[in-house]
Amino acid sequence: MLSENKKMKTMMKGASPERVYAFSDGVFAIIITIMVLELKKPESPTFHALLQLWPTWISYATSYLFIAIVWVNHHYLLRYAAEATPRLMWANFGHLFSVSLIPFLTDWVAESELAPVPVAMYAFVLFLVNVTYLVLVWETLCDRERVVISAKEMWLLNVRSFFTLSLFLGAMVLAFWFPLLGFALVCCCLLLYLKPEAKMPGMKMPEPGMMKKTKM
Amino acid sequence: MLSENKKMKTMMKGASPERVYAFSDGVFAIIITIMVLELKKPESPTFHALLQLWPTWISYATSYLFIAIVWVNHHYLLRYAAEATPRLMWANFGHLFSVSLIPFLTDWVAESELAPVPVAMYAFVLFLVNVTYLVLVWETLCDRERVVISAKEMWLLNVRSFFTLSLFLGAMVLAFWFPLLGFALVCCCLLLYLKPEAKMPGMKMPEPGMMKKTKM
Amino acid sequence: MLSENKKMKTMMKGASPERVYAFSDGVFAIIITIMVLELKKPESPTFHALLQLWPTWISYATSYLFIAIVWVNHHYLLRYAAEATPRLMWANFGHLFSVSLIPFLTDWVAESELAPVPVAMYAFVLFLVNVTYLVLVWETLCDRERVVISAKEMWLLNVRSFFTLSLFLGAMVLAFWFPLLGFALVCCCLLLYLKPEAKMPGMKMPEPGMMKKTKM
Amino acid sequence: MLSENKKMKTMMKGASPERVYAFSDGVFAIIITIMVLELKKPESPTFHALLQLWPTWISYATSYLFIAIVWVNHHYLLRYAAEATPRLMWANFGHLFSVSLIPFLTDWVAESELAPVPVAMYAFVLFLVNVTYLVLVWETLCDRERVVISAKEMWLLNVRSFFTLSLFLGAMVLAFWFPLLGFALVCCCLLLYLKPEAKMPGMKMPEPGMMKKTKM
Repeated sequence: MLSENKKMKTMMKGASPERVYAFSDGVFAIIITIMVLELKKPESPTFHALLQLWPTWISYATSYLFIAIVWVNHHYLLRYAAEATPRLMWANFGHLFSVSLIPFLTDWVAESELAPVPVAMYAFVLFLVNVTYLVLVWETLCDRERVVISAKEMWLLNVRSFFTLSLFLGAMVLAFWFPLLGFALVCCCLLLYLKPEAKMPGMKMPEPGMMKKTKM
Repeated sequence: MLSENKKMKTMMKGASPERVYAFSDGVFAIIITIMVLELKKPESPTFHALLQLWPTWISYATSYLFIAIVWVNHHYLLRYAAEATPRLMWANFGHLFSVSLIPFLTDWVAESELAPVPVAMYAFVLFLVNVTYLVLVWETLCDRERVVISAKEMWLLNVRSFFTLSLFLGAMVLAFWFPLLGFALVCCCLLLYLKPEAKMPGMKMPEPGMMKKTKM
Repeated sequence: MLSENKKMKTMMKGASPERVYAFSDGVFAIIITIMVLELKKPESPTFHALLQLWPTWISYATSYLFIAIVWVNHHYLLRYAAEATPRLMWANFGHLFSVSLIPFLTDWVAESELAPVPVAMYAFVLFLVNVTYLVLVWETLCDRERVVISAKEMWLLNVRSFFTLSLFLGAMVLAFWFPLLGFALVCCCLLLYLKPEAKMPGMKMPEPGMMKKTKM
Repeated sequence: MLSENKKMKTMMKGASPERVYAFSDGVFAIIITIMVLELKKPESPTFHALLQLWPTWISYATSYLFIAIVWVNHHYLLRYAAEATPRLMWANFGHLFSVSLIPFLTDWVAESELAPVPVAMYAFVLFLVNVTYLVLVWETLCDRERVVISAKEMWLLNVRSFFTLSLFLGAMVLAFWFPLLGFALVCCCLLLYLKPEAKMPGMKMPEPGMMKKTKM
């Protein structure tokens, strides 16, 4: 019912968020694919040459996983957007911009073989991705008209987010002295993001059936 | 009502503008993303090397913002297109072509560290983007059958557009002697574009609800 | 009515051609955009350096126009496809493959400054694009169930197509001795394609209203 | 009827797989197009230089065909997905990741002129593409609620899949001693995939009409 109503209202106002989805999907698809397409080729046709590129493989696998996680969260979140308001569009552009910096830094981390400054900047960009995602969450869920989540749930969501953000900042600081440890901390943070439903715990879902099915 | 009617008519004629949206979104997504993906990497893994690339950072940030603004305006405008007529498609191709020249010139501006000719050509391409956008506006809003905006509103829209176009031309001329000043003028012009609703002031919006919500 | 019926049938069979559109639009968007993004930068920040790249500018403008024309025709044609049959999908892949060879040859033509072999191969690839488009036309319009166009109209369409194909082949042969003349002939052929409705003259259009509007 | 029901349920739960289609189509379009766009240019404007690049041409044509086949199968399979569950999304990411490794290996095979290790790794990546596709098949068709295919049909499907997987593994091992023979075996495997309906033989299709039409 609710989703039907939403659709109706959107159609009447004419500002459906569908082009925002299409544009975002295009950007995500390009970022995630180009990164893999621009992998350095080994210098000789041997396994040894392939294995020598280990910093490349580790940093690319981490970034692929991270961008996939970001897309899944983006997909979950934007289902709650009823309208493409200008503020939502700009929050989305901010998010996409920070995501599109990931391949640049992945390259830098791989090329410098996990040097301190590149790893620290990598953690900082992931921090930026999270900040812009939080802004997108606020813009999507804290609409003044619709009551999507209660104040207490919002508080829980914010506490969790600030905890994750602190972890990324910690990884950044750590990377200046122990780049490998900082990178390992970043990888651990990623695991916290694997389940989108876990991040929005008590939310009144308009579609409760879907969330549980995955556990069956 | 109006938007429902529009949808009905479009469906019967079979030439819905949806593939024009999809194609345009694809082109915008590629332009905005590739530009960031092709950023030059610093020569050494230090902050100093990162900061030395300042002409790159400034020109890329400006171009990203500009392309985002162009997309938002494109999104707002094409909602009024009821049909994908050949003339609309060709106006759209012209617009997309001029937009796709932006990364090429951004690169040139960054590489030459804001030399006169590249900055002047950059202002000229932004001028072209605006001219082709104006053609797209005329093609979309000045349909002979539907009365979307009144003659007086159209006159206002045109006066504003010619004012902006003059600013870009001025920036182009200025850039030959003072490239930094010309670039600064271009950046100022961009701020005028940030609010799409401000550009089409008195237009009879079929969806009046949406425009006001952003100010609440 | 007809288009409503078509939609109904498609929905029941579940093989709507929408993903074929989306995939094709993605491929066209990438081809047309990457070509412009990979333009060579002038060696110095002067107008002289920009003008010295004239073979690049001419070949890129021609290719952009050609790919735009191909997209418009593809868009017009696939509206008549009721279903994504495997044969339609494979005809489409063949068409997209030949289109995606255009940037490669455009580059070669530009780099060799219109040398005989690259221009001849360029004309040959445009010939291939036309052959695969003709196969796509046959696959879309000559369905055994629906009568979209009459035998006489099909004959007219084929005569026209073979005329165009001969022109491209002629340009190819001519290019071996007079590359500039061959290239000029290719450019003339393109003008024949600018109006998609002109290419399918007497076809019984299910949506007659649209075709005429553009002349008003 | 069935497809109408499916649509209804999906709309109520709000997790339609449409964005998964759009994202996947974007990734496929980029992979297949970029591969062709990044073809090496011949060193001189002659036929001889063009023909000397034969390892490039063979490996690119094989990869283009393979990715097209993978897309067609993906298109056929995902029509049976009623919902974008997290598990389906992650199976899809795994599939897309292995597909996006193809251009990297195609490049390596072409550059090394079909050396043993690159051809073996190429066969291994195609093996990975098949494994991840099988996981996607299980995730899509073996839903606990809907009975799409019977246990016996599933058994047949699995036997066929393991046979194909063994062929790819065999090609990989063979490539260490006879790279050309291994590559030829890979090409033969591809032919088995050309007909998507042949791969899911006795499946209870909700849309039986479509599958037969292609043979008429």
